[in-house]
Amino acid sequence: MTRQLDFFADELKRLGDRRRSFLEIDRRAGQFPSATSRRGAGDADHEISVWCSNDYLGMGQHPVVLEAVKTAVDAVGAGSGGSRNIGGTSQFHVLLEQELAALHRKEAALLFVSGYAANDGALTVLTGRMPGTLVFSDELNHASIIDGLRHGGAEKRIFRHNDTGHLAELLAAAHPDRPKLIVLESVYSMSGDVAPLAEVSELAARYRAVTFLDEVHAVGLYGPEGAGIAAREGLAEDFTIVMGTLGKGFGTAGGYIAGPAVLVEAVRAFSRPFIFTTSMPPATAAGALAAVRHLRSSEYERTRLRENTQLLHRLLTERGIPFLSARSHIVSVPVGDDLLCRRASALLLQGHGIYVQAINLPSVRPGDELLRVAPSATHTTHDVRTFAEALDDVWTELGIPRSGSSATTARAEDGPTGGATRSGYGTPLPLNAHAGG
Amino acid sequence: MTRQLDFFADELKRLGDRRRSFLEIDRRAGQFPSATSRRGAGDADHEISVWCSNDYLGMGQHPVVLEAVKTAVDAVGAGSGGSRNIGGTSQFHVLLEQELAALHRKEAALLFVSGYAANDGALTVLTGRMPGTLVFSDELNHASIIDGLRHGGAEKRIFRHNDTGHLAELLAAAHPDRPKLIVLESVYSMSGDVAPLAEVSELAARYRAVTFLDEVHAVGLYGPEGAGIAAREGLAEDFTIVMGTLGKGFGTAGGYIAGPAVLVEAVRAFSRPFIFTTSMPPATAAGALAAVRHLRSSEYERTRLRENTQLLHRLLTERGIPFLSARSHIVSVPVGDDLLCRRASALLLQGHGIYVQAINLPSVRPGDELLRVAPSATHTTHDVRTFAEALDDVWTELGIPRSGSSATTARAEDGPTGGATRSGYGTPLPLNAHAGG
Repeated sequence: MTRQLDFFADELKRLGDRRRSFLEIDRRAGQFPSATSRRGAGDADHEISVWCSNDYLGMGQHPVVLEAVKTAVDAVGAGSGGSRNIGGTSQFHVLLEQELAALHRKEAALLFVSGYAANDGALTVLTGRMPGTLVFSDELNHASIIDGLRHGGAEKRIFRHNDTGHLAELLAAAHPDRPKLIVLESVYSMSGDVAPLAEVSELAARYRAVTFLDEVHAVGLYGPEGAGIAAREGLAEDFTIVMGTLGKGFGTAGGYIAGPAVLVEAVRAFSRPFIFTTSMPPATAAGALAAVRHLRSSEYERTRLRENTQLLHRLLTERGIPFLSARSHIVSVPVGDDLLCRRASALLLQGHGIYVQAINLPSVRPGDELLRVAPSATHTTHDVRTFAEALDDVWTELGIPRSGSSATTARAEDGPTGGATRSGYGTPLPLNAHAGG
Repeated sequence: MTRQLDFFADELKRLGDRRRSFLEIDRRAGQFPSATSRRGAGDADHEISVWCSNDYLGMGQHPVVLEAVKTAVDAVGAGSGGSRNIGGTSQFHVLLEQELAALHRKEAALLFVSGYAANDGALTVLTGRMPGTLVFSDELNHASIIDGLRHGGAEKRIFRHNDTGHLAELLAAAHPDRPKLIVLESVYSMSGDVAPLAEVSELAARYRAVTFLDEVHAVGLYGPEGAGIAAREGLAEDFTIVMGTLGKGFGTAGGYIAGPAVLVEAVRAFSRPFIFTTSMPPATAAGALAAVRHLRSSEYERTRLRENTQLLHRLLTERGIPFLSARSHIVSVPVGDDLLCRRASALLLQGHGIYVQAINLPSVRPGDELLRVAPSATHTTHDVRTFAEALDDVWTELGIPRSGSSATTARAEDGPTGGATRSGYGTPLPLNAHAGG
């Protein structure tokens, strides 16, 4: 046993500076993005402004969501007490699945306890059971997609990120009789860039491929009723399965898929992470249901997020601070060096009370370290200006290079819901495993 | 695409009668085990008594838990907004991990969003990273353990269920220099039998193996402060890692491991289902924290569960209705035929308002179908008597065989916390993948 302890101690030692210490932050309902932070026991409380949350629309503190959670807790209690098959199905699970199916205009939907479990569980079944299945996967798909494909064990072809020319080549080279599945994301977590969905859907139709579209960074945020990027582009029907999360735009927790009834039921019947898991607390499902319903009828949160994002794009561009894509609300500022990135994050926190987590391995590849800045619908215009000035100060203090002026002309119209077809800021950096981590 | 829809439609057709339809039940906080049920849209509400929940102690409706959840919702909101590394660590996550480490007297603990994720995530790291690792796994370990070992990819030896003679043979046959890990459960979900922990710990010490003990059906329920079976036997220190859940005895949701700091940190640093997942809602962690704290000081719930279990054992034995083990609170009544088992479950529900899910493939092997009866601390003595009579009626109506009288003499002292060393009811049936599903 000692040997194993020594082995893992060495592995941790090799991580060196990349050994992670989690910042403890306590959000304050009603006051988000303000929060209280602590780093480790004994540290004093600090007031901070959070600039890296995935609760992009602030639904995690919306009164309709909090009331729904508390009302459900009073009515049915805390946990579900069992798997979906053994006593763990409540009306809130059933209603939420119906609501998600309606949101995406699909026949059925299925809940998982997390987005990781949804991608892992669904893809293992959808790619692993039918003999001869060939999978086409974007090279920057999220870790949970990669793991689901690994666990399914199907043969796969990796296409270059967002490169439909490459995807077309791979599809053309495959035997026409093999069952095919294309898996991609609509908004990529670490770069904020957006997939060329129209071209992918054309290729899928031509080669009769099933399509699996991960919209975790888009549901609630884009498209009619918040149904996502494919819906915004009028392409929702072209994607067989949409996968989403309740833990980002919808402010609660859990993951889901929506699609044809037969595929959803197959996942329900055969997915081990689905079957062998206590279902999500009914009150969490109740909160998510309230969030989905609210965002189907309210445009306010989406508008605020778009305005804040466009302002931030403009302010950073004016300051020559580059970012990877202007096509979504994820404003990833490349630093390209782990130590420098962590120093920038620390300076923002200590000097300005602004929390942006430095992103490093395994979420991005070495050399691709970045600050993943996430404006939210709850930031004020003043917050956005304060943030841009703070980032400017830190860039100056650390001497981080800025963009040449002509290449970084502001393209504020190239914002998250503008439907722009090209990135305003050059080629995205290659990034590994687009990650929530 | 049509081909894939056809393929999965065929797969579902092959499931035939085993195609699952989930009973929708709404627990009523404060009145559990009473609940309202519905099977599908349009079905009327029915009043039922739940006899198959894993909320064994009723903590899912305990006022201290519900208050803790609601207070946290008011204070910090609904979801966490991020992974543990990116804004998703709140004081409740930190305090809960500290409390769980203290409960198990280990250096550290780590939360996951589910028990499945905890076993999968931890075992993948602990067995998969160190070259040459050899795993020894009980043949009836849960699906999540099996999947974690598969995903880790280490070589493994499967020992016959609870057979320490076989385990000893396998350990003796292994090269002494190979790092070894033994993985088992303390209470097996589908049979309710208990592992011979003293013998396993002796073998582990002799062969210098790391031990990973899944106590999901024991934490909160057994031992001092509810620390589990190993703690009850005075063996907690002999098991390197204890794995538990917050979704059963602790009435909320989530899974965890506790163990030496270096191993827990290694899992934290390398486990993909941990890293790439939005953390559990802070309010869920707050509710779990309240449940753990309550059960560390209160014996009341454990006493009530023990009393109900012993009474049920006695009543079933008097009626010649066999069950697989008298060593825990899980009273699994073998039926051995899928259709008959589902008919028994349906009769209990329709004729008596009692909900016990029929357990079939993939949770148990064909021929091992059973009713997995779970008394809880919230059932009254009257409830237990009513249940036994209802089961008796159903057994008569369906002509299900009873035990011979002499083999089934009541052994009420052989109850869940009695520390009995043998099963009162013959040899457990072979069961597959002890399951929460």
